[in-house]
Amino acid sequence: MRHVDVLIIGGGPAGISAAIWCKRLGIDCLLLEEQSQLGGQLFNIFNEIIDYPGMRTKNGIEMQREMVKHFVEMDCLYEVNTKVLFIDERSKTVKVKKQAKEQEICYTYLILATGSSQRKLGVPGEQQMIDRGEVYSASADGERLKGKTVAIIGGGDRAFEGAHLLSSKAREVYLIHRSTRFKAREQYVERIISNPCIKVMTDTEVTAIHGDRHVTSIDLESKNKEYKNKEYKNLLVDAVLIRLGVAPNVDLIKGKVATAQNGLIVTDDVHQSSNPFIYAIGDSCTTPLFSSISSSAGQGAIVAKQLSSMLNI
Amino acid sequence: MRHVDVLIIGGGPAGISAAIWCKRLGIDCLLLEEQSQLGGQLFNIFNEIIDYPGMRTKNGIEMQREMVKHFVEMDCLYEVNTKVLFIDERSKTVKVKKQAKEQEICYTYLILATGSSQRKLGVPGEQQMIDRGEVYSASADGERLKGKTVAIIGGGDRAFEGAHLLSSKAREVYLIHRSTRFKAREQYVERIISNPCIKVMTDTEVTAIHGDRHVTSIDLESKNKEYKNKEYKNLLVDAVLIRLGVAPNVDLIKGKVATAQNGLIVTDDVHQSSNPFIYAIGDSCTTPLFSSISSSAGQGAIVAKQLSSMLNI
Repeated sequence: MRHVDVLIIGGGPAGISAAIWCKRLGIDCLLLEEQSQLGGQLFNIFNEIIDYPGMRTKNGIEMQREMVKHFVEMDCLYEVNTKVLFIDERSKTVKVKKQAKEQEICYTYLILATGSSQRKLGVPGEQQMIDRGEVYSASADGERLKGKTVAIIGGGDRAFEGAHLLSSKAREVYLIHRSTRFKAREQYVERIISNPCIKVMTDTEVTAIHGDRHVTSIDLESKNKEYKNKEYKNLLVDAVLIRLGVAPNVDLIKGKVATAQNGLIVTDDVHQSSNPFIYAIGDSCTTPLFSSISSSAGQGAIVAKQLSSMLNI
Repeated sequence: MRHVDVLIIGGGPAGISAAIWCKRLGIDCLLLEEQSQLGGQLFNIFNEIIDYPGMRTKNGIEMQREMVKHFVEMDCLYEVNTKVLFIDERSKTVKVKKQAKEQEICYTYLILATGSSQRKLGVPGEQQMIDRGEVYSASADGERLKGKTVAIIGGGDRAFEGAHLLSSKAREVYLIHRSTRFKAREQYVERIISNPCIKVMTDTEVTAIHGDRHVTSIDLESKNKEYKNKEYKNLLVDAVLIRLGVAPNVDLIKGKVATAQNGLIVTDDVHQSSNPFIYAIGDSCTTPLFSSISSSAGQGAIVAKQLSSMLNI
């Protein structure tokens, strides 16, 4: 059976950084990525990246290219199109599948860099909108959304933050939330509710997104009597920002390491999980509030340095 | 009196990252740097930087250039040649001096990004050696030091790590330490002491470094009777690696926030110090074992995100 000292699951910025650092420190390391390309959530960044010190890129793909180039130049070992099916933490083995072929890999230390996924509405028209690239950042796309009618879907901090940022730019902002209770911080909610430029629609669900070349309208279904009338069954909007939050990708490890109520893997300051041979970095263990490419890169460095000392290299 | 929401002291990678992130998040922020240029310890990196994901540079100055370019393009506010003389944490004011002119700046939150300094021997010839650029990395300069006689000065992890890394490359490695007790981890010490290619000289001090265009020899003074004889008064070497460790730059804040025994500022996971209005990032609060450009950049992101939410932006 193949053995590696450090096995990294996930090829986003955190995993890439950990692999580069392992290579730098002389650690025998292999990175596994389920998709056909490394980069993880970088593929979902459509606006300019201005916050990774020293390197501005026009979008996530450009950042992906630079990171992968670096990774490949350093001769880091990796496998793409390789799905981890099962982690057996007792025998310290993972079962993986690559093009219908299964194999087992044995590790001394495992790094989970599985990231997180944006929660989706799961309604008709949503995936088409995303595939067309109609994915906006409230902070970076203010100018693009100037004078437009924008619907923000969600009830957490990011939905409210987005509504606040766009209220001074867009012509109209709707904040649509399926419940009457918000997860967002109170001060955020107060600020939005008192803002006359933002219409907050509670108890209301989006059931479809329409538009061929770009979003033109959304269908709504409301339990709120204020919005039950026909006027709101179909709402004309120019853009939809889905802000339902993210969920850490932790299915593989459920029950094997401790997770917090929000689903994040619990780690200590060197990113060790409750299992001493399993570490976690990036969005699988970092709250969205503190997640960034910079912090993922930093965590990759720390975990590799820690493992280098554990492995006595 | 000038007031800023966030005042950053120190313009190394941690401070630069925090300022970029503050700008990105719309925080009113000012960075102060004592030297004439931003970059901090980047100026002390003479070998290739291969571990900052996405960006390889041939040395620290090249990295400095890219980071400062980014910083300036983002229009971050800063002052160079500006020394902080005093922090009054009660009135939340700092007194600064720029070209003989003193002024006071009032802050809502203060970020200490003052970094750390390499401890020096303080002997004749040392500064000249550094100024000539004879500063080596044991991990990156193995090829450059191949077949050479190398003296490593120090008794901590980094000294032992360096000796280990170079023992397979250099012709001879001397590890010279002024005491008989080592700070390095036991497993490091054992590995080195049992290595026949490394000569460990304890109770021995370096009193001078000789060489005009490059290091040619060092003077030693030993209490160890084994090395008291004339043969060791002057030792022919081709390179000297000073590994006396680093000390965090915390003089400004001594007694105002809690520090650990190793001198580092104690912070929580969002980098808040024991004073709720003072945060610390980078090498002033990070053990050298986990310090890196990547982790400094990550810490800058986290602290800015935290302050953005504290400032209710």
